[in-house]
Amino acid sequence: MVLTALLLAGCASAPAEVATAPAPPTAPMSAEAAKPPVALQYLYGSAEAAIAVRATNARIADYALRRIRERPKDSVVLAPSASMSAPLFEPCGNKPFAAVFDADETLIWNLGPMRYFAEQGSSYDPKIWDQWEQTGAGKAVAMPGTADMLARLRAAGITVIANTNRSAANAKGSEDTLRAAGLGEFKHGETLFLMGDDATGSSKDGRRATIASKYCVILMAGDQLGDFSQQFNVKDLPAAQRMALATSAAANALWDQGWFLFPNPVYGPWEKLGWDDVFPAASNWTPE
Amino acid sequence: MVLTALLLAGCASAPAEVATAPAPPTAPMSAEAAKPPVALQYLYGSAEAAIAVRATNARIADYALRRIRERPKDSVVLAPSASMSAPLFEPCGNKPFAAVFDADETLIWNLGPMRYFAEQGSSYDPKIWDQWEQTGAGKAVAMPGTADMLARLRAAGITVIANTNRSAANAKGSEDTLRAAGLGEFKHGETLFLMGDDATGSSKDGRRATIASKYCVILMAGDQLGDFSQQFNVKDLPAAQRMALATSAAANALWDQGWFLFPNPVYGPWEKLGWDDVFPAASNWTPE
Repeated sequence: MVLTALLLAGCASAPAEVATAPAPPTAPMSAEAAKPPVALQYLYGSAEAAIAVRATNARIADYALRRIRERPKDSVVLAPSASMSAPLFEPCGNKPFAAVFDADETLIWNLGPMRYFAEQGSSYDPKIWDQWEQTGAGKAVAMPGTADMLARLRAAGITVIANTNRSAANAKGSEDTLRAAGLGEFKHGETLFLMGDDATGSSKDGRRATIASKYCVILMAGDQLGDFSQQFNVKDLPAAQRMALATSAAANALWDQGWFLFPNPVYGPWEKLGWDDVFPAASNWTPE
Repeated sequence: MVLTALLLAGCASAPAEVATAPAPPTAPMSAEAAKPPVALQYLYGSAEAAIAVRATNARIADYALRRIRERPKDSVVLAPSASMSAPLFEPCGNKPFAAVFDADETLIWNLGPMRYFAEQGSSYDPKIWDQWEQTGAGKAVAMPGTADMLARLRAAGITVIANTNRSAANAKGSEDTLRAAGLGEFKHGETLFLMGDDATGSSKDGRRATIASKYCVILMAGDQLGDFSQQFNVKDLPAAQRMALATSAAANALWDQGWFLFPNPVYGPWEKLGWDDVFPAASNWTPE
């Protein structure tokens, strides 16, 4: 019971009454936490997040169909060595059109292991995640509006490609997972690019370059900045610099205009942020 | 230390490695939780959330300026008794244009009490929140891109109005808080509508009707569905029905087209969702 109370205290520190929210829950607590952590409640359960995801998918499909009316000069994949301050893109030439998506929390929600980790009160475990990649087919779900969005893209002749940091060793499991979620066929090496496909580890830049050498990439979508360029993930990049880079004029010209970001408050590179990164000292406040 | 470990376990159950995220934090733990809960890290600290908020503000300003080129027939405020299945809107007539915003986590981020609640490991406390409404000026910050967005609206002659469930008794504190955040002048009874202005409590419908009687409301924005219509907050409305209503064809026609939703995974009406609401049984999965 102490565990339960502490978990709840830590995870549900939220002013439910501020807006039009109902009163805080008063249901009796079980031996487990009575409710999932708030980030999981929001992302996987709320109408609010479903609307945000659906709207993002609608923007992607609308953008894609508008974009291919006239052949773009360039892909939205940055050329090697191009920085956000002087962006330079891979050329489109006469290559066929493609749209490149991250998989986890971009095409599918990983409900199975997310519930498991949260119920156990455990953090991410790479061995369990590896099992999930192999056996999760049917337990991950397409995100709201994603199947429709992909269908609209494919009907317009746009090749749909996933570039994910799931392991190349588990390619079949990920192909099966995406198919079972109703998202169609992804084939390793053709329309599914995985960590281990090249020697650059979790950076997706190399795989993006490979894809852009064969396709005119009209859009990319993901839930983290590494889904767009590895320069946002440079080791020890200070949080303030990452923020400045991601909201620079050059980057802002791409958001919703070729680069599409899905909400994911459940996990991400921002998990390293400390109290003073998240809350500037000038905003500190204490009640009397 | 036990408390710290449990808080972390409960709040940071996240596969940081799935995409291009860095390794889980290994910094030594202090007597307090070493990191803020993930929902707060994401919303208030991440570049990912800043981008999402900025992009929403850009969509609002672009929409508003486009919308007023030709006078709309109707406000985006539902008429009393209009349901989502047969939406009917307040008429615009020749009324001046207005844009109606929730305040908390829509115009401003409430960094002061959010850090306080999280550091204390406590949940929302209405007495502390009441103090915050009175004394928070200078400790709440404008959300990314919000000041620019409001400036574009006002420059186009659109009246900016806040309709919030902050208390009418604390009107001066909220006026001061919005001004100190750089968001300009909001005046109680004219451009600031508060809980207690009428006898309908936390429902914003009555206040919306009051506003729509004087203005052609071209857009509304908020972080929760109650910022658009009280029908999403009907007592004991099952979660599945709320979801169906919020993602119905009629509602989908409004999202990003007059109704604009900001991300807020920190608090909301979805906090009442239980494990089985968030994670359908068909998606349950356990590692070997």
